Amino acid sequence: MKLASLRSGGRDGQLVVVDRALRSFVVVPDIAPTLQSALDRWADVEPRLRAVAAALAAGKQAGAKPFDTRECAAPLPRAYHWADGSAYVNHIELVRKSRGADMPSFYWEELLIYQGGSDDMLGACDDARFITEDHGIDLEAEIGVITDDVPMATPTENIAPHIKLIVLVNDWSLRNLVAGELAKGFGFYQSKPSTGFSPVAVTPDELGEAWHDGKVHLPLVSHINGVLFGRPNAGVDMTFNFHQILAHAARTRRLGAGTIVGSGTVSNIDRSSGSSCLVERRTLELIEHGAARTPFLSFGDRVRIEMLDAAGASIFGAIDQRVVRA
Amino acid sequence: MKLASLRSGGRDGQLVVVDRALRSFVVVPDIAPTLQSALDRWADVEPRLRAVAAALAAGKQAGAKPFDTRECAAPLPRAYHWADGSAYVNHIELVRKSRGADMPSFYWEELLIYQGGSDDMLGACDDARFITEDHGIDLEAEIGVITDDVPMATPTENIAPHIKLIVLVNDWSLRNLVAGELAKGFGFYQSKPSTGFSPVAVTPDELGEAWHDGKVHLPLVSHINGVLFGRPNAGVDMTFNFHQILAHAARTRRLGAGTIVGSGTVSNIDRSSGSSCLVERRTLELIEHGAARTPFLSFGDRVRIEMLDAAGASIFGAIDQRVVRA
Repeated sequence: MKLASLRSGGRDGQLVVVDRALRSFVVVPDIAPTLQSALDRWADVEPRLRAVAAALAAGKQAGAKPFDTRECAAPLPRAYHWADGSAYVNHIELVRKSRGADMPSFYWEELLIYQGGSDDMLGACDDARFITEDHGIDLEAEIGVITDDVPMATPTENIAPHIKLIVLVNDWSLRNLVAGELAKGFGFYQSKPSTGFSPVAVTPDELGEAWHDGKVHLPLVSHINGVLFGRPNAGVDMTFNFHQILAHAARTRRLGAGTIVGSGTVSNIDRSSGSSCLVERRTLELIEHGAARTPFLSFGDRVRIEMLDAAGASIFGAIDQRVVRA
Repeated sequence: MKLASLRSGGRDGQLVVVDRALRSFVVVPDIAPTLQSALDRWADVEPRLRAVAAALAAGKQAGAKPFDTRECAAPLPRAYHWADGSAYVNHIELVRKSRGADMPSFYWEELLIYQGGSDDMLGACDDARFITEDHGIDLEAEIGVITDDVPMATPTENIAPHIKLIVLVNDWSLRNLVAGELAKGFGFYQSKPSTGFSPVAVTPDELGEAWHDGKVHLPLVSHINGVLFGRPNAGVDMTFNFHQILAHAARTRRLGAGTIVGSGTVSNIDRSSGSSCLVERRTLELIEHGAARTPFLSFGDRVRIEMLDAAGASIFGAIDQRVVRA
């Protein structure tokens, strides 16, 4: 099942069911007006949404309309909890290298995670607004999962049933603000502005065999200005899977329905698959050539992030955002 | 005007208007069902809520009922944005000392802020649940403000009109997890579980002369197990005021309506006023006696946080929480 939130629904969007091919959608106001309201009572709502999805797939759903990803808000246009892990430790190692920071071995054993701002999520085709290029504007292509209510201290082995939806994420980052913020000791804030999301959120079964062991085993494909930038496989070199990330997040607190947790920048040790953020490419250039060659993003640049199934069809629709001056 | 959210309203609480003396309340479903929905369209809603408050004050409001803070959820039982500054730099200096960390001078010029979890805010009399005492359970008594929509890069001098409500906050902290998390570089996560809030949120005019220069100029009174623990004045030694904290928060992003921003632990350089968290008292004991004498909190302990007006009346009602095993 694929779900989206239309911008026309206001601050929280209007929940719609989208067909697998991303060609048509139907509104479901009698089932749930918003995705948050559906997640708040998912056990009751899911069977009814699935019945609509089945009717839509069979061409028997009244009221279906053509789906246009440009009309999409983020699946949760504002969320109560957005935390981003850094599960591809290869990425941490490279980024720390670029800052001249050392790489203590505990990073391979203890998850890094930060709490992100969740009051202003960006739709897949929304412009990404920044006050200046001088901040070092960067993409971070990631996978995210959305949960129902997760009790405090849920162990890793009991996490799987709480993962209700999967999304793609662009965790926009301002690289030139990172070092200063991290040096102060409280983590990211200004350096992690509003985050972009794929047009649709999908239930794990939509991924078939590609979803197992709490990982998505498919390439995450990023383009910058139409040029392929990277296609690392999200199932490879993921040091901590989503079960581990969520168990870490829930260790000392309950997680409310609609919690979104990210994987961190997808990164493969095999360099031939490219990168999911510029700082990683710049670090590789620094190592190879003694200097970074690829600049951070400029106003007018476009970033596209997508994931295709084995048949080449887009699973989540594409994040396709333009970088603009605020 | 004083507002609260009753737990009986479900996940987001039911918005009620409370009289100044905290004796009676009235529901306002025709104006706004929840505080978030009121903040989403505050300019339209505020005059109607104020009319109800005036009728309640005059004893002319039909449907008024006795107010009981035990029925209160947090004013925003779940919020889209909760960020906590650390505006009393004296507190930072002491806490860093306790960890053996140095105190670079930039802390006096650059605000420290962290993004907190906001999907599970605790009501004023809710039990605070923790998995173990070994984590070093501590209170942090603070002031918080709630905003409407704040545009990106709003300058400090234009922030004041965006502050719509003021609350008291208990930013529960797990001290024995802090050093390990901060050493990893991404800031707090497990060490900052669910946060407690005062029964009512008040408009700034309720504070009269005590609200000026973006600060609350009154003592914030904390008790542990009925014993006075501290009563530092929140208007004294606040290095960054709420205008500065919010301008910092909005520098690279929009802030959505219902954003809650905290002051950090209230702390006065004059030690005779006591502290607002145990780690500060323990640090002072360490400095004076060579060892901390006051333990962190145990299951069964009670923490009460309140602010009184010049006449001795409780402005926000009391946060009065019990520490219990999850």
